Amino acid sequence: MAAAANSNSDNLTLDKVREALIRQEDTIIFRLIQRANFPVNSPTYDEKFASFSGSLLQFVVKETEALQSKVGRYENPEEQPFSPENLPPSLVPPQANPPVLHPAAASININEKIWDFYFNRLLPLFAVPGDDGNYASTASSDLDCLQAISRRIHYGYYVAEVKFKDAPQDYEPAIRAQDREGLMKLLTFEAVEEMVKKRVEKKAAVFGQDVCLVDNGNGKCKVDPSVVSRLYGEWIMPLTKLVQVEYLLRRLD
Amino acid sequence: MAAAANSNSDNLTLDKVREALIRQEDTIIFRLIQRANFPVNSPTYDEKFASFSGSLLQFVVKETEALQSKVGRYENPEEQPFSPENLPPSLVPPQANPPVLHPAAASININEKIWDFYFNRLLPLFAVPGDDGNYASTASSDLDCLQAISRRIHYGYYVAEVKFKDAPQDYEPAIRAQDREGLMKLLTFEAVEEMVKKRVEKKAAVFGQDVCLVDNGNGKCKVDPSVVSRLYGEWIMPLTKLVQVEYLLRRLD
Repeated sequence: MAAAANSNSDNLTLDKVREALIRQEDTIIFRLIQRANFPVNSPTYDEKFASFSGSLLQFVVKETEALQSKVGRYENPEEQPFSPENLPPSLVPPQANPPVLHPAAASININEKIWDFYFNRLLPLFAVPGDDGNYASTASSDLDCLQAISRRIHYGYYVAEVKFKDAPQDYEPAIRAQDREGLMKLLTFEAVEEMVKKRVEKKAAVFGQDVCLVDNGNGKCKVDPSVVSRLYGEWIMPLTKLVQVEYLLRRLD
Repeated sequence: MAAAANSNSDNLTLDKVREALIRQEDTIIFRLIQRANFPVNSPTYDEKFASFSGSLLQFVVKETEALQSKVGRYENPEEQPFSPENLPPSLVPPQANPPVLHPAAASININEKIWDFYFNRLLPLFAVPGDDGNYASTASSDLDCLQAISRRIHYGYYVAEVKFKDAPQDYEPAIRAQDREGLMKLLTFEAVEEMVKKRVEKKAAVFGQDVCLVDNGNGKCKVDPSVVSRLYGEWIMPLTKLVQVEYLLRRLD
């Protein structure tokens, strides 16, 4: 995870937010490559785990998030849990820094959508079919991917806040009119999105290559770079904009 | 984590073990790069955490390993805990596969040495001084690094087993004589070690670069490749050989 952008309101600039987003691309790609070490391993998801009410994946998510909650993970607004029911409180003393975001951020959690596209659409595109028995590592690797993607998407709060602060006059009319489509239009820059898709595709090609001392010339990547480009184009960027729109709609409350 | 090599004795070949070790290099380097996102963050290690008896790091290690133990992590011989006291039992049904390793493997855990070099020698070489307040993420990132390194080093069991199986006549005299130095000599191939150091240095340069659409020419790496070469030369390879020697000394028991 990259450093939080929420420590000081004066530090929140579009450049810093963009820098954090770019660094998070590396994290997401590293984690997808790690998940690709395992085949699909469907018993991780399909079978009831021991005496737990759900699957091994659900057990790992619930227990890991409970532990992370105790050490303060969810004090950062951009960290949203996938299993928010009955999370234990943080044992870390609250930070004295003034909050940077509007309190509405806390109520915007689109992890259900993220969970859905990750397991139903994305995973079959980059994990090979099969079962090698490593279900616990698979579950933990899935959670790593989910958390990196979720953090990236919920970072939309900061993107929206900094854009709003830089030009409130552009956003206020659409917010007052509760005009989702108008806000979405204000937040969409197709040229930038194309550039991001190209950059993550290049990163996936660089980070996913087999590095040998003598070039083995196979050029095979551990995760197909076009899948990473699609991940950004079809899910990460649209959902980040959804978070931004939801945040802005409540920005003047 | 890479797939375990312990599912079937007939599958254990030197080529497969080497392939697993090479894949683990990527994991270790990815995780070091992720840890380098944070400065040293010494309160993670120095301050007592809430009502827990130790630091935040020790809390995260103990609780994470307890959770992982429940989902069967330590049923794999190459996974050794850093906090082995009072680990809860696995809730996963034991595998029916016959064990590949001599039972002695279970008693060889050199994580104290790994913990020591990681925090006292390695971390100051690649984490910049400073404090950004992200202690929970720092602790979790340290544990990711420690586990990847520990798994790589304890994979020495498989290296030793496959070498022994391939040429018992070479090893038995030294084992019967309990000759550590003789075994260490049999296990040392300097040319191979130099090649590994060069390869991980190259990987660190590739995976740690800033990937931009237009080459920014700064050539700066997130983790100094020479530090990764040193990590392998000074710690990972010598400690893997130590695991191999300890294992072989008990191989005929």
